[in-house]
Parts: sequence; C-alpha cells; structure tokens
Amino acid sequence: MSQRVDFLFLNEQDMIDAGVMNTTQCINKMEEVFKLLSDKDYRMGGKLGNSHGMVVNFPDVPEHENMPKNGPDRRFCAMPAYLGGKYRVAGCKWYGSNIENKEKGLPRSILMMTLNDADTGAPLAYMSANLLSAWRTGAIPGVGVRYLAKKDAKVVSTIGAGAIGTSSLFAILDELKTVEVVKIYDVYQKSSEVLKEKIESEFKHVDVQIVNSEQELVEGSDVISIATAGNVSPEIKSEWIKKSALFVTSGSATFDPDFAVKNIQFVVDNWQMYEEVKYEDEYPYNNKEMGVVGRLLLDWIHEEKMTTEHIKEIGDIINKKVNARENEDDIVVFALGGQPVYDVAWAYTVYQNALENNIGTKLNLWDVAYQVR
Amino acid sequence: MSQRVDFLFLNEQDMIDAGVMNTTQCINKMEEVFKLLSDKDYRMGGKLGNSHGMVVNFPDVPEHENMPKNGPDRRFCAMPAYLGGKYRVAGCKWYGSNIENKEKGLPRSILMMTLNDADTGAPLAYMSANLLSAWRTGAIPGVGVRYLAKKDAKVVSTIGAGAIGTSSLFAILDELKTVEVVKIYDVYQKSSEVLKEKIESEFKHVDVQIVNSEQELVEGSDVISIATAGNVSPEIKSEWIKKSALFVTSGSATFDPDFAVKNIQFVVDNWQMYEEVKYEDEYPYNNKEMGVVGRLLLDWIHEEKMTTEHIKEIGDIINKKVNARENEDDIVVFALGGQPVYDVAWAYTVYQNALENNIGTKLNLWDVAYQVR
Repeated sequence: MSQRVDFLFLNEQDMIDAGVMNTTQCINKMEEVFKLLSDKDYRMGGKLGNSHGMVVNFPDVPEHENMPKNGPDRRFCAMPAYLGGKYRVAGCKWYGSNIENKEKGLPRSILMMTLNDADTGAPLAYMSANLLSAWRTGAIPGVGVRYLAKKDAKVVSTIGAGAIGTSSLFAILDELKTVEVVKIYDVYQKSSEVLKEKIESEFKHVDVQIVNSEQELVEGSDVISIATAGNVSPEIKSEWIKKSALFVTSGSATFDPDFAVKNIQFVVDNWQMYEEVKYEDEYPYNNKEMGVVGRLLLDWIHEEKMTTEHIKEIGDIINKKVNARENEDDIVVFALGGQPVYDVAWAYTVYQNALENNIGTKLNLWDVAYQVR
Repeated sequence: MSQRVDFLFLNEQDMIDAGVMNTTQCINKMEEVFKLLSDKDYRMGGKLGNSHGMVVNFPDVPEHENMPKNGPDRRFCAMPAYLGGKYRVAGCKWYGSNIENKEKGLPRSILMMTLNDADTGAPLAYMSANLLSAWRTGAIPGVGVRYLAKKDAKVVSTIGAGAIGTSSLFAILDELKTVEVVKIYDVYQKSSEVLKEKIESEFKHVDVQIVNSEQELVEGSDVISIATAGNVSPEIKSEWIKKSALFVTSGSATFDPDFAVKNIQFVVDNWQMYEEVKYEDEYPYNNKEMGVVGRLLLDWIHEEKMTTEHIKEIGDIINKKVNARENEDDIVVFALGGQPVYDVAWAYTVYQNALENNIGTKLNLWDVAYQVR
C-alpha cells in the first residue's frame, strides 16, 4: 500500500479516445445501474439517501451588484454517489450551467467528474464530463426503449436537438433497428439542422425530417424523446398522441392530468429521488429552476390529481416485477431526472478503458501527504 | 472570449509553494468571509441556501457484501458554494474520509477543491485541498480569538492534535502574542509529541506541556481549542472551566446544559447552517456520524433546554451589532461547523498566488468543446 497518490486527468479528447461515445456499451452499463438501484446496492446524498444532488442557484433580483442573476438553467450542482456491484467506487460530478454560454461558443453546462477510491477517498480520475453526462443521459432512453417501446416502432421524434437530444436519439436509434423516420423539432433551427446531418451520416437508412411544431412532431410518432433545456416546457395535447406511444422525457413537458391518469403509465428512474425533492424544495416542485416530468408528478400528487400507485420504476420492469403496460394501447411516459450513480458507472467504465489503452495525463497529488509525515 | 478552456492543477507541494500555510493571511481572509456572510453576499446549497454540504455515508450493517461499512468519520462529502465580494467565484470541495487511512500512511480525509468561473462554470483550478481545508479550519479559531478571547490570555490548550488541532493552534498562537503556556491532550500520545515539536520549533517562547486528561487540560486555560475527530466527544465539566475562558470547537464536545444556559455565551459561524440540518438529518442531530457543538445546541433547543436567543453569530460581533460577553466573567463557546464559502475564499487566494508566481500545471480541457462545434 503506497502513501503516494496519483490520479488520471482525462480531457475531452481523452474521453473520446477512451470510448465515452460508445452508445451500446453505455446502454448496457445503464441497464446494470438500474439493477443495482433495484437491489439498493448504492448510496447517494440527501435525507432519504436518494438525492439528485446539491444545487447552488442565484436570486431573480440579487441584492448585491456583482452577484449572478437567476436565468434559464443558471445553477451550479454537485452530484455525489457511491455505486456498488462490480463498480465499488465513489464519485462526484460538479457543474456550472448558464444558457448564455452559447454566445461565448461554450456548452450550456461545463461538467467535471471526480472518481474516488471507495475506501481511502483518494481521487482515481478527474475527467471532462460533458460527453460523459450527455452519453449517460442519452443511454437511459436507450434502456427505456429496450424495455418500454413497441417492438415495431417506425417513427422516432425528438423535441430538443441539443447535447441531450442528440445523445438520446443516437441511443434510441442504436436500440431500435426498425425505425424508418426521424422527426426533429427545436426552437433553434440551426440545432435541428446540425442534428439532422449527424443522424443522416450515422444512420443512412432513416428519413430525417425537421418539423415546425410540437403537434407535427408528436402526431404519428411511436417514440418521442423530450430533451428540452432552460425553462422550455412543451404542452403535449392528448389528441396528438398515438396509441401505445412511448415518451422518454429528460427535460420538461406537461400533459393533461385527467387524460394521463386514465391512459398513461408513468415509469420513473427512481421515485425516492422525487420524494427527496420535498426536503429540498417548495411546492410547486416542477418550476422554472428545475422542470422535469417527475416533479410534475410530485405536483399532481400534492394537488391530489393522482397517487403514487400510477408510478412504476424501470428497475422493477427490468427485473420483471411489474409490467410496463396494463393494456396494449397504454401510452408510456418514461420520466427521467438524472442521478449521480449513472455518472459513476459510466466514468468508471471510461476510466478503465483509459487505463487499458494508456490514455490521459497522470498527475501526482503527493508522494507523502504533508500531514501524515 | 475564447472557446478554449484551460485550468490549473495544484498538487499539495504547489499549494504549499503558493502559500496555503500562510496563517495570518488566512485569518484575514476568513474575517472577510464572515463579513460577506453577514451581508448575505454568498450562495450555498440546501433548502435554506445554507447547507454545509451533501454527505454520502454508509450503513452500520450493509446488506451487500462489498459495500463499505459505517465507521468513525466514514463518509464522502460535496461542499459547493458561491462567494461574492471581490471573490465572485464558485467552487466545490469534495472529499472522502476514513479513519483507517492512518494505517495506510494516508490522511484521514483526502480532499480536492475545484474553483469555477461564476458565469461560465468553467474550472479555473483543481487543487489538493488537505492543507487548504486544515488551514481555513484553523484560521477560523484565529478569527474567534481575535474577537472573543480575553486580551491577556496566557494559557492556550488543545484537545486533539491532528490536522485541525495543529492548524487551529498555529492560528491561535499567531493571533495571541501573550501566550506563555500551551497544553496538549490527544488519545494518541504520538500525535501530541509531533505537535509539541512543531509548536516548539515555531513559537520558541512558549512552554509546551503534554497533559494526561481533559480535566488537567481545561483547568486554568484561557483558550481551549477542541479539535476532536471520529466519534470522540469530551465531556467538559463545569467546575473545570476558568472564568472568561474561550472554547473554540471544531470537533465534538458536551457541556452541562443547565450550567451553559446561565454561564456560557454561544457564538456560531452561521446559525442557518444548523437550521438546515433539520431538513438533512433526524433528531438527535448531534450524533456519531456528525458531532459538533452547533448540532448539540440544535438538540438542546429540540429538548427545550435552551432557545436561539442564547446564540450569536460571529459576523454580527465583528460588525459590532452585538457583544460577545454580557458579563466580564462569561464563558464563550465559539462553535464551528465548517462551510464551503471558507474553502472558496482560501482556494481563490491561493490560486491567485499560484498564477502570480507561475506555480502549478496548466491543463487543457478542450480547444473547442465537442458539442458546440
């Protein structure tokens, strides 16, 4: 056992070289994470041990001249977790997010991941986490499609063509070999065009269409990925939705609660994570600082429009404890909130790839720590 | 504005070279932080925006064979904050802690600090935070002594001779030029001896004594630093305490509540941080996972043994809004819990020193981020 601590720095190119964009591997790893979640072989923060992470945000009207002002997706967030199974490793993702970054040619969020020895706490790796985060977030819809989509799905659509929309669509297409048509809608036409080009070069057999409204997008779609950012929250009209359709929602969206209770099966990543929100935030939980469908469900439960009986967990479906659909025609909404255990799993996998292939920069923390000598 | 993101890596030796152990400067910076706290020019996480951080801990009896088991100081913790004033910077300290590290020749906690641009979220620096953390934690008692100790203090003592005990004692001696005697008590005799040697080589005019009991240590002392670790919680008997004495407690300790309500003035770093604990933990708040005097006060309030009227904040004393002592003989207990704003302030200062003196390793995150191209 050495007193010396070294760790690996992986910048964005290193992460690419180490396979961070390997969609199939990432979907398989995320499926493993859901099994570990179902087995409770993980630890996260928060009162219930299931917190998404700790957010630092800013006021709408700061009292101090120089204090940053609240805005769409304006926050810092620390997401710590331990993951068991064959991972047995801890880590923390830490990011700052600001929609104004786009004007500077920077991504909306800049994310870094630290991976740590579960026993000593020593850093194993410090990694650029933009692609890590986008890929793991995209891979979850891939797992969703594997277990929740109708097997003959032909039309797949995305609302939102940013980083998450892109990686989600790649994962869905990786998983669903039957797709013939992809529809894209984004408030930024340019983003739609960039995504169209990426899909066309990767999946030559699909017909990619940029559409001009949410209605046009949802109608006739078998799988709809909702990857909105900022405070964009599309209202999905019930009459647009095809029977047996699957929504995978990484971003915000609203549905008609009366329709939903009768016709939609809600599947979440981890319901305890949303229960945790009650200790972290005030009603309405689905708000402009943090809008996701899981929080919308919390609000509906608070408003007595539905109960937790309408909510299933993906891990229980994977482990065949429950069925996704009660009836063939049921619509399924797979509502995602993001959890640090995903980052730990994918970071550890990419880190192992990097070690095997000699990728990255080895950094020395100390030979012997000053306060042990 | 460049799309390229670089940041500085500072390992432990770099941190030393950049002045992380400059006690006087650190005390001055911590005094500034308390003024910013009093002005509310900061942001932290949690429901009240005043959280110490997010802890990931382990069960006493894990259900899974490979899951780490709870133990003294066994946790991971993410501590995010934004700090205003002339700092205007965000950051997150992330550490893992395990008392068994000592057997491996590693520090009990291994800490890393990320410093971020407040607007873009881009990392500015990734730093070894063991000395950063020890020095900022030690400097707070220095601020406490500056405002709360009797001016002619002759006898200063420490319960606990570890990293925090050491840096606290250095800060107290840096601040109090009248000290003639230093008393040390630690359950590990070896730690006491190491600290004795350090003090003797730095402060040649003081008589350093290793004592064999808490009673011997407290009796006759003008200032007592309590820097215990793990689940060590000394019970301080009322009859041992000298009139007008000051306790600075970074660790756990218990006092007799009946005596305390009549004779002790409690001064805390940030009372809202302890109020936040009610959303994060269950009563009893002062427990073996996290024992500090601020949590003991929460318990006393919960048990209706005292009220918040008995509690003052150091920032209000610095800003002369209230007096530390009502009566000359009053004992003062300065109860500390640790806040990420301290880390941000001291990290930013050391980072600036490093930039000016060309210390550290420049790392490139990306030239242009993959998902902006």
